[in-house]
Amino acid sequence: MKVLITGAAGMIGRKLTERLAHDPMLNGRPIARLDLHDIVAAQAPEIAGAEVNVIVGDLAADGEAERLIKPKPDVVFHLAGVVSAEAEADVDKGYRVNLDGTRLLFEAIRAAGHAPRVVFSSSIAVFGAPFPDIIPDDFHATPRTCYGTQKLIGEALLADFSRRGFFDGIGLRLPTICVRPGKPNKAASSFFSAIIREPLAGRETVLPVPRSSLHTHASPRSAVGFLIHAAGIDGETVGPRRNLTMPGIACTVGEQIEALARVAGSEVVKLIREEEDEAVWAIVQNWPTRFTSQRARELGFVAETSFDDIVRAHIEDELSGNARPA
Amino acid sequence: MKVLITGAAGMIGRKLTERLAHDPMLNGRPIARLDLHDIVAAQAPEIAGAEVNVIVGDLAADGEAERLIKPKPDVVFHLAGVVSAEAEADVDKGYRVNLDGTRLLFEAIRAAGHAPRVVFSSSIAVFGAPFPDIIPDDFHATPRTCYGTQKLIGEALLADFSRRGFFDGIGLRLPTICVRPGKPNKAASSFFSAIIREPLAGRETVLPVPRSSLHTHASPRSAVGFLIHAAGIDGETVGPRRNLTMPGIACTVGEQIEALARVAGSEVVKLIREEEDEAVWAIVQNWPTRFTSQRARELGFVAETSFDDIVRAHIEDELSGNARPA
Repeated sequence: MKVLITGAAGMIGRKLTERLAHDPMLNGRPIARLDLHDIVAAQAPEIAGAEVNVIVGDLAADGEAERLIKPKPDVVFHLAGVVSAEAEADVDKGYRVNLDGTRLLFEAIRAAGHAPRVVFSSSIAVFGAPFPDIIPDDFHATPRTCYGTQKLIGEALLADFSRRGFFDGIGLRLPTICVRPGKPNKAASSFFSAIIREPLAGRETVLPVPRSSLHTHASPRSAVGFLIHAAGIDGETVGPRRNLTMPGIACTVGEQIEALARVAGSEVVKLIREEEDEAVWAIVQNWPTRFTSQRARELGFVAETSFDDIVRAHIEDELSGNARPA
Repeated sequence: MKVLITGAAGMIGRKLTERLAHDPMLNGRPIARLDLHDIVAAQAPEIAGAEVNVIVGDLAADGEAERLIKPKPDVVFHLAGVVSAEAEADVDKGYRVNLDGTRLLFEAIRAAGHAPRVVFSSSIAVFGAPFPDIIPDDFHATPRTCYGTQKLIGEALLADFSRRGFFDGIGLRLPTICVRPGKPNKAASSFFSAIIREPLAGRETVLPVPRSSLHTHASPRSAVGFLIHAAGIDGETVGPRRNLTMPGIACTVGEQIEALARVAGSEVVKLIREEEDEAVWAIVQNWPTRFTSQRARELGFVAETSFDDIVRAHIEDELSGNARPA
């Protein structure tokens, strides 16, 4: 089993790599080769019996996609991309990386002719306000960001190239991934993770939106689970609609905080200071809140069933099981 | 008022050009310049007081889009494209013309910086089976052809570039245009027009699908009306969802034939021979049948209200008012 991961140095790419290193099987076959591509060097794990290659380069550069596809990977996890805020700030870069990079990769796979499984990380950013209370699987995608537009175009290419048999693609619309490890960043969504991660690390944090704000989350562990499941799912069963809205836990920010208190104690939540930020709230209000994710659930994609589980997953995976700094 | 039409030599392009020649005003302003672009030479009408230019070239070729946008047209009608059957048969050509051509045009307009109105002819081919009985405006676009995929990507780019203020775009999802003038062709949809056009010209024709087949039609005259209306519509009123499913007449093939009999007499319909073609029927069964087109109707887009009107429009516009050959 030869595996290629693009965007391997990103958060999801790192988590996927760790998972494959820990359990080096995919679709029931041992991993013989793992190629980790990104614009910066991904960290290479040791995998017994497997060749692990770290490849640094720009996916949208001339010949780069062909170079990556030359070993004819059986499964391609296409996670590479410029994030939402950057794609909005630098239109040319966003289109170059997120659209051209994706198209060049897909065309290189088509040219190679071996029709591998391609798992593409799309996003609920393909949806744009206004929304119904719960977005059904057949709701139209009308993004209101460059990033969402580029993901939507990637989805359309993936579905068409799959239909034509150039590869066997599955697109995953990921919900907000929470709890993101690392530092707070300038993304408007940063607080969803920060209100859990920072108090658990003994640090103060700010909640910039009302406690009633409703949002859908899945843990990094679930996101990796989606990717692994998508690698092995039967394309015929999925049918022609290859882009699936992943499940998650829909809850209010208040419920997030209650879950934190239940799991880690009521002292911890005192580190959250409520200080409404109108700019952040204006953005967050335009985000979709809930999804049926009916098809994805029927196809066996599984997320947490309570936000408590998401808090626990973070404590286990990032804090070695300790809710407070050691 | 400077106007650019891409795909000006195509059926809709010719009809739009005729209309602008007949009534050389757009959005209440006289047409001072009309640029007619296509891969073959469009026919140039005489317009008093206006410069009419016929430009032959490949929209996807280097520098072509910049050349077209240099005069800073106030309204761009982007109709150019490879048709469905050809885009499916020649994947590279379809993506080059329909995706790259559109993107290069949009990027050239962005670079010019004057933010004109752009009217883009999309298609109901953005929808892919299975469908509900009546497709609502918020139904997802999951095309099952390369053509539909390319149109969907054009729509996504149009909406994003409009959102960013690079231009002020309106995308029109056209239903099947009926009655198409000219000869029968190999398109699976050819018979929808042929069963009206051929008998009216005194020629036999074949109906390859059951009379119960339901489909939505608009006349070439209505299609031109949509384009003209889109040229003048207020973008703020349209809002961020810039791609609209145009209205039309939903009727069965049997109802089409009944309308023909009402308008042109029962002798004429005897020229239609029913001979089911399983290959054609298999394709047509996967096409969408009806649409609410609620937003488009609310925004003032008007189609025929009966198929009789579509038959009459064909007789008036193509047969000088005579239902039989002169």
